[in-house]
Amino acid sequence: MRTEYIEKLTVLMREASMDAVLISPGEELTFFTGFSPMMCERFQGLFVKADGKAFYICNLLYGDQMREELGADVPVYTWFDNEEMTDVVDGILEREGLKGKVIGVNTSAQAFNVLDIAERSGITFRNGKPLLEEVRIHKSLEEQEYLRQSAAIADAVFLEALDFIKPGMTEGQIMDFLFEGMQKRGATFVEAIVASGPNASYPHYEGRDRVIQEKDIVLLDYGCAFHEMMSDMSRTVFVGGMSEEEKNLYDLVERANAASEALAVEGAWIPDIDKAARVVLDEQDLAKTLINRVGHGIGYSTHEGPYIKQTNHRRLERGMAFSIEPGVYISGKIGMRLEDIVMINDKGETEVLNKSPREPMIVCPLKEYHE
Amino acid sequence: MRTEYIEKLTVLMREASMDAVLISPGEELTFFTGFSPMMCERFQGLFVKADGKAFYICNLLYGDQMREELGADVPVYTWFDNEEMTDVVDGILEREGLKGKVIGVNTSAQAFNVLDIAERSGITFRNGKPLLEEVRIHKSLEEQEYLRQSAAIADAVFLEALDFIKPGMTEGQIMDFLFEGMQKRGATFVEAIVASGPNASYPHYEGRDRVIQEKDIVLLDYGCAFHEMMSDMSRTVFVGGMSEEEKNLYDLVERANAASEALAVEGAWIPDIDKAARVVLDEQDLAKTLINRVGHGIGYSTHEGPYIKQTNHRRLERGMAFSIEPGVYISGKIGMRLEDIVMINDKGETEVLNKSPREPMIVCPLKEYHE
Repeated sequence: MRTEYIEKLTVLMREASMDAVLISPGEELTFFTGFSPMMCERFQGLFVKADGKAFYICNLLYGDQMREELGADVPVYTWFDNEEMTDVVDGILEREGLKGKVIGVNTSAQAFNVLDIAERSGITFRNGKPLLEEVRIHKSLEEQEYLRQSAAIADAVFLEALDFIKPGMTEGQIMDFLFEGMQKRGATFVEAIVASGPNASYPHYEGRDRVIQEKDIVLLDYGCAFHEMMSDMSRTVFVGGMSEEEKNLYDLVERANAASEALAVEGAWIPDIDKAARVVLDEQDLAKTLINRVGHGIGYSTHEGPYIKQTNHRRLERGMAFSIEPGVYISGKIGMRLEDIVMINDKGETEVLNKSPREPMIVCPLKEYHE
Repeated sequence: MRTEYIEKLTVLMREASMDAVLISPGEELTFFTGFSPMMCERFQGLFVKADGKAFYICNLLYGDQMREELGADVPVYTWFDNEEMTDVVDGILEREGLKGKVIGVNTSAQAFNVLDIAERSGITFRNGKPLLEEVRIHKSLEEQEYLRQSAAIADAVFLEALDFIKPGMTEGQIMDFLFEGMQKRGATFVEAIVASGPNASYPHYEGRDRVIQEKDIVLLDYGCAFHEMMSDMSRTVFVGGMSEEEKNLYDLVERANAASEALAVEGAWIPDIDKAARVVLDEQDLAKTLINRVGHGIGYSTHEGPYIKQTNHRRLERGMAFSIEPGVYISGKIGMRLEDIVMINDKGETEVLNKSPREPMIVCPLKEYHE
């Protein structure tokens, strides 16, 4: 158990008038305990109480395994398929002093189980995600260092990818190349989007089959975990050369990114950072194509606090790390994005963790580039 | 949209005094619409109202894709990262006449989002999983036929596996063999547990690395989707031969399975079916090692209604299909399971869909078997 973070969580719980937080299996459970089982429809999760004590509830099927993983400090209670889950959980909550209390829930808690428990035991469940994000929103010196190294891995692989990308290969081949490049540098988890041609116009493109053509745009968005700290960067590269329209759009996206990054200093008002990129894109009436937030926090997961968006009414603080990733997306036609991870370090300085070139990169240049 | 099932759902909704059901991405959404997007932390889902009309809410990022998938009959509303999701959803629920109403939720609905919406819009959310299971608990004639064929695929692969399994190969190699055997017969989705030696004592074993030894027990539990209908069967095979203890245990498990299957007739009280297997196991004080329910319904998913357990207070009806899978599990030591899919067909007859041998199968027999 990460006791330091459990302690932070209890402070936040008391501030939010919560008596406990329920953490069902997933990344958040791994963060606190170092382990997370597979989740099925059978209710399970770690309950952390405001006094810092924790207990686990799961189906009898998983009891032995969870006892082994959680150790002697965390009691594991089980319910059996032939009992009503809500009856057993009711007895446990009674015993743990939580009947009729207020309990926050994490991201993976299943609504159907939580609602059944609420009804049976008079629990008021509330969204506990903001608390769980706040617990780790200020990165420690060690976490900051691993964020730098994780970004450096992504940067190193980008330079190699510039030599690798060629017309005729599939998006999937480039993805595999990025994965291998990160893994051989010690990454323990890797993810990537490679979106070519019109596919680059979909920010969350999931395919891997399109074959790279001459004069394609190729959008690379990828990252990895290094000592649990994630990286996440995007670069848009050009096969053969760039058309005038592409040069114009890239310049706009690059300036939008630069405008947001320039504002990302300690004490900055977060909505202003989101707005700065949109103001630049609006020079050509393209802010409306930026259909998502300008950035997201990063650390133990790729998406966590602080989110860089209009509705996040707070200021940047030391230890925060987040992406700045404005883009232009004209659905089915063209898309570009430029994404860096930015960190406010312990001295209050702004560090842009990604050092990869920001100018447009052309791979396999054609002698004469005709549109 | 599967309109026939939507209609069934609306009848059940009205009986349960629900004004709508929320179906977030996952298998249940695919069942109704033929498509399900990836799910992230951004709230999304299909709302089906008691009058049969449906609408979809998602983030702006996914709007175009969902409109394309859902067609003109289902309005798609979007919210933008720079808006408060709950404000936008509140406006949509108002417009759709659902403010302050009762809405059931499906298995994948995320508690943290549902709780935020409940608070903002005065919605009473309730567990909608039982309704969604009831919609498809009686298999149509066509579904019954595909269940038979799906089971036949699993049976055919079992006979091949008996020739394939040898000491020295890994559990993973046997899994891959089962996968390939099902895929080459037209399966569109495959899953398997191969648990050898002491691993067979964990009903939900997830590994694939152990090397098969002479005199091992190998527990095979696998199935596939064929025309959307799942199969799921378990057989326990013996490498080299069987010890006296193994013969005794296998006989017990086989008789437990037979006792439950014998009771599985139209009109049977479901808890009795669960109990019958436990009574047999108790001859040797082993019912306590059966740490899960005796069976689960099957169809569009591997686990759905009707669950064969003490707390399911209803009778078997025509069109129901479910597993019977008692086992003995002595943690870290020995495990055995025998699982068939049983169906009450449209004539009210009981069909055991799996025809694989029930007697103990010995692979690679040793000339002399010494314990």
